[in-house]
This record gives sequence, C-alpha cells and structure tokens, in this order.
Amino acid sequence: MNVVGVDVGATKIATGVVSSEGKVLGRVRRPTARTSEKLLSGIVRAVSEVRDGFEVGGVCVAVPGLLLSQESIVVYSPNLHAIEGIRLKDELEPEIQLPLTIENDNSAAAWGEFRFGAGRGANHLVFVGLGTGIGGGIVIHGQLLRGAQGAGGELGHVTIQAAGPRCACGNRGCLEAFASGTAIGRRAGEVASERPNSALGRLAIEREVLGEDVTRLARDGDEVALSVLKEVGRWLGIGLAGFVNVFNPEVVVVGGGAIGGGGPLLECAREEIYVRARSPGRDLVEVKEAALGLDSGVIGAAALAKGPSGNCLL
Amino acid sequence: MNVVGVDVGATKIATGVVSSEGKVLGRVRRPTARTSEKLLSGIVRAVSEVRDGFEVGGVCVAVPGLLLSQESIVVYSPNLHAIEGIRLKDELEPEIQLPLTIENDNSAAAWGEFRFGAGRGANHLVFVGLGTGIGGGIVIHGQLLRGAQGAGGELGHVTIQAAGPRCACGNRGCLEAFASGTAIGRRAGEVASERPNSALGRLAIEREVLGEDVTRLARDGDEVALSVLKEVGRWLGIGLAGFVNVFNPEVVVVGGGAIGGGGPLLECAREEIYVRARSPGRDLVEVKEAALGLDSGVIGAAALAKGPSGNCLL
Repeated sequence: MNVVGVDVGATKIATGVVSSEGKVLGRVRRPTARTSEKLLSGIVRAVSEVRDGFEVGGVCVAVPGLLLSQESIVVYSPNLHAIEGIRLKDELEPEIQLPLTIENDNSAAAWGEFRFGAGRGANHLVFVGLGTGIGGGIVIHGQLLRGAQGAGGELGHVTIQAAGPRCACGNRGCLEAFASGTAIGRRAGEVASERPNSALGRLAIEREVLGEDVTRLARDGDEVALSVLKEVGRWLGIGLAGFVNVFNPEVVVVGGGAIGGGGPLLECAREEIYVRARSPGRDLVEVKEAALGLDSGVIGAAALAKGPSGNCLL
Repeated sequence: MNVVGVDVGATKIATGVVSSEGKVLGRVRRPTARTSEKLLSGIVRAVSEVRDGFEVGGVCVAVPGLLLSQESIVVYSPNLHAIEGIRLKDELEPEIQLPLTIENDNSAAAWGEFRFGAGRGANHLVFVGLGTGIGGGIVIHGQLLRGAQGAGGELGHVTIQAAGPRCACGNRGCLEAFASGTAIGRRAGEVASERPNSALGRLAIEREVLGEDVTRLARDGDEVALSVLKEVGRWLGIGLAGFVNVFNPEVVVVGGGAIGGGGPLLECAREEIYVRARSPGRDLVEVKEAALGLDSGVIGAAALAKGPSGNCLL
C-alpha cells in the first residue's frame, strides 16, 4: 500500500507518494504559507495533488519544532510560528480524509534513514540534521525515542561549551550555536574579516556569508572556507562523541541542507569522535551522510504513517 | 518469587535477597578482592550466604564498567580491573547454580529507581550516579537503553566544556571531570588554598580533601565548602539540561555515594536546568535524589534477574 509523506519546512512543503519499498513515486512541492490558515490549506492541497492517481492508505505530516505528540500540537517552532498552537490532527484529518499521523520532522528524517537509508540494518541510530538550526532524531532498539511529551531528541541543544555563544534557544554554548548552517555562516563572516584576500573574504565584503557559500567556496578550493568547515566539523564531532557514548549507536547519520560540505566536515567530526568517545562504541560507529538526501523527511514520514488499526503502513 | 541482586563495587560486593515488592529481605556484604579469581569466588560465596534460608528463583550480578552485554564481558572498568576480560556468565553460572543475568551497575541502579524508587510511575527516567566517576542509566519508553553493544548510557562522558580539564577517560571537559565525587574533592582542594582560614582550608592543610569531606563541612555550616557544592551543582545541571532536552524524561534521579550533599548540589542543578533546558521538558522534569539510596543497584539488579524462560522474575 502506498502512503503519502509530508515534510513541512520553513520555506516549502515537500510531499511524496511513497511505495512500500520506500521509493518516491510522485512528488508535489508548494511554498510554505506564513499564516496558520493558509499553511493548513496548503498542506491539504499538496496532499490532494500528490495522491491524485495513486491508491493511498494513509498520510503522515512531519512538522518542525517541539511537538507534543499526544495532542499533536507544536508548542514551539522558531522558524515557522504559523504552525504553533494548532491541533494538527483534528484540523487536518477531516480535510485529508485519510488516516493521518503527525510527527516531528527530524524524527521522521531519522526514521527514513533507519528504514530505507544510511541506517538500514542498524538497530540504533542517531540522526543529526544541520540546517538553520540543528535537529535530531534517535532510534533506540528499533524504536523512535520521543520522551514523555514527544519533546525528546533535541540533539542541537546540548551544551558543549558552557560559556559559549548564545544559542537561538536562549542557552549558551549549545551544539547548534557551533555547528548549524547559521553557525557556519557566522563563523565564516568572522574569519573572512581576518582574511580579506581569500575568496571568502572577498565575498564577505559584498554581502553576508551564508553556510552554503562556505560549502561552495571550499569545494572550489578556497583554503579559508575549507578551514571554517573543518573547524565546524570538529565542534560537530564534540557533540557527536557524547551521543556515541550515550547511545552506543551503530550509525550516526548527518543530513539536512547544510551538509552540502559533507566531506571535510564529516571527516573532522569523525576524527574528533575518535579522540573523545570511548571504545568499543567509537570503534563500532559509522558516521555517514544521509543517503536519502533531502528526501529523508518525506520518506520517513511515509514510513511512520499509521492505518486505521494504528499500525504503520510501510 | 525472591531474587538475589548483586552490586559489585570497587571496594565491596553488596548482595540482597529481594522480594517481588522490591524489599530487601536479607543482605550480605563482602570486600571486593583485587584478583579475578578471588573476585569471582567472593561473588559466589556472597550469593551462597545471602540466599541461605530463602527460596530464590534467579540471580543478577551488576558490574562496573563497559559491559558488552551479549558476551557478558566487561571490557573496561577503571576502578576494578580484576573484572575485565572475563566471560562472567560462563564463569559464574555453573557455580551459582541458578539462572544468572549480568548487567551494568548504573543500568541496574536506574532500573531499581524506575521500578521501586524515585522513578515509580514514570516511563522515561535518567539516572546519574555520582561516585568516583559518573555513571548513567537511561530508561526510555519503559525500557533500558543499552545501545548496540551494551555500552550506552555513559552519561558522565559527554563534553560540557570543550577545552575543560582532562577526564579519567582521556577526553577533555567531560561532565565527570566537573561533577563526580573526585571532581568535588579536587575543586575543593583548589578553593581551599585560596581560603586557608575556612574549615575547608584548614582540613586541606592536614590532608587531601575528599568529596565526602566537602559534603560534611557544608552540612556543618562551612560557607566555602558549600560554595564548592553549589559550583559543582551548576556543572551537573549543565549536563542534566542536555539530557532533559535529549530524553524528555519525567524524572532525573541523582544517586551514588557522592550525593550525600544532595540539598544544595541538586538545588543548583535544578536552577541550571531551568535556565538551559527547553520548555516543555524543563517544566515537566523532576530532579530527585535516589529514593533507594545505595540499595538502587542491589534492588535494580534483582529486578533485572531473568528466570529460565528469559523473562524478568520481579
């Protein structure tokens, strides 16, 4: 039975009809609206368009932010306030007219990689999504870790440097403040001003440097941009080393939009894990780039969609 | 059916016959031997003594260090090298002549508090044991988190200050390096030299200050000792805040021998959690002292003992 997976992001709603083998059979993308009403009707419309012509057994909508799973309400979504405070299942299910599941977007991405991506065959997986912020999803003994309220898995918000820079969450020194796409851009801006003759330095004179600029410049051979990616990779590794000690996973999957610079970033993260984490966990763990790329969320959401009996359909 | 729980520590082997209600009906304690052979025979003898006169269905031995659960071999036990490298189940079961389970000591303590102590009624619990080092045990969705090799739950070895002091594990800036009993003693020694007229300062001139000295002096009203406990409590809270964000537990239980100074230590940890962790998890979580005290390990081990069918007996 095919299933529809929906990944609601800050800028776009990605939907896909996903087969029982985890293949995306059809896609629809729509921009994310900024008001709650339009956001909801945009999701309904995208689902209706994408399922057209397919037999579909259920839908799962993955949403960004802190989701109280029982009430299916997002209480905090820094990049998509329009989704906060709505009883998503109650609002959307009557419109969609299919069994509807609501999930956190990073949990969905973790589950996608676990079932059909870089974590196939593992029982324990840690997923870290690098984007504007850092999201996390954790699979333990083959089960998603949600925690008591569904608010677990916030891997971006562990302190790795107690007196470090202020994080978007209000805390200081979170992993997110050192290794998100935003942090890559910010650090690049600082380094650029010290190295004005580098490609990075020249760009920074023209405009604000973004995480993706750093990735691109590093790939084009700019040593300064590369050094920023390496530095961020080491911070990432400091956080991941802790997760290796705590979860003893077979695989850590790094995904999200800011992982374009995968190679050097992950290489430095791996080195730091090897220095900081303990045997035998550090010897076992593989640190991989997300195999499903930006489809992790859509495919993972589909794999979490439940049928009328309450069981997953894929 | 009664069960025997065994908690193997660096200095003593604590055993108890535990009832199905989690009550300790009888106890035997023996010193821990320093050679593998004597250690094993000491465990066997303690079990034989404690079960005398009771009907007992099984035994669980909880051991310190990194336990590969499938092979029941401890690969690393910094404070009890004699236990390393032995196939514990294979060696002990024929002597004990009862179904035998081997567990990690902090996992057992977590399970004890979950079933019969401060975590009763919770589904998600984080246990942190403060002793010579810091151990951890995690219950998620009512299940112990072991990880792929049984090496998970190492909550003492997450980096909270990247360039911090060297930890016993070789890493820098681990939670253990800031908030273990050893760390309390070390920090007290530093502070004492700046405050030679305090009770702490006078003690430090006579001999090395231990974690338990700090607790005692703080309870007796020494402001300097109290300030050390508060500082350590804040570091503990920095680590715990990350666990609240990652696990979203209903309860965090702090136990172990170095929690004698519970009050001010935990109070400062709670304040730090409130500053650093996110809603709604920080609003839900209760941070409690272990209700079973030093019995967490014995009772928890008993509750993890399996019968011939492979099911837990309690």
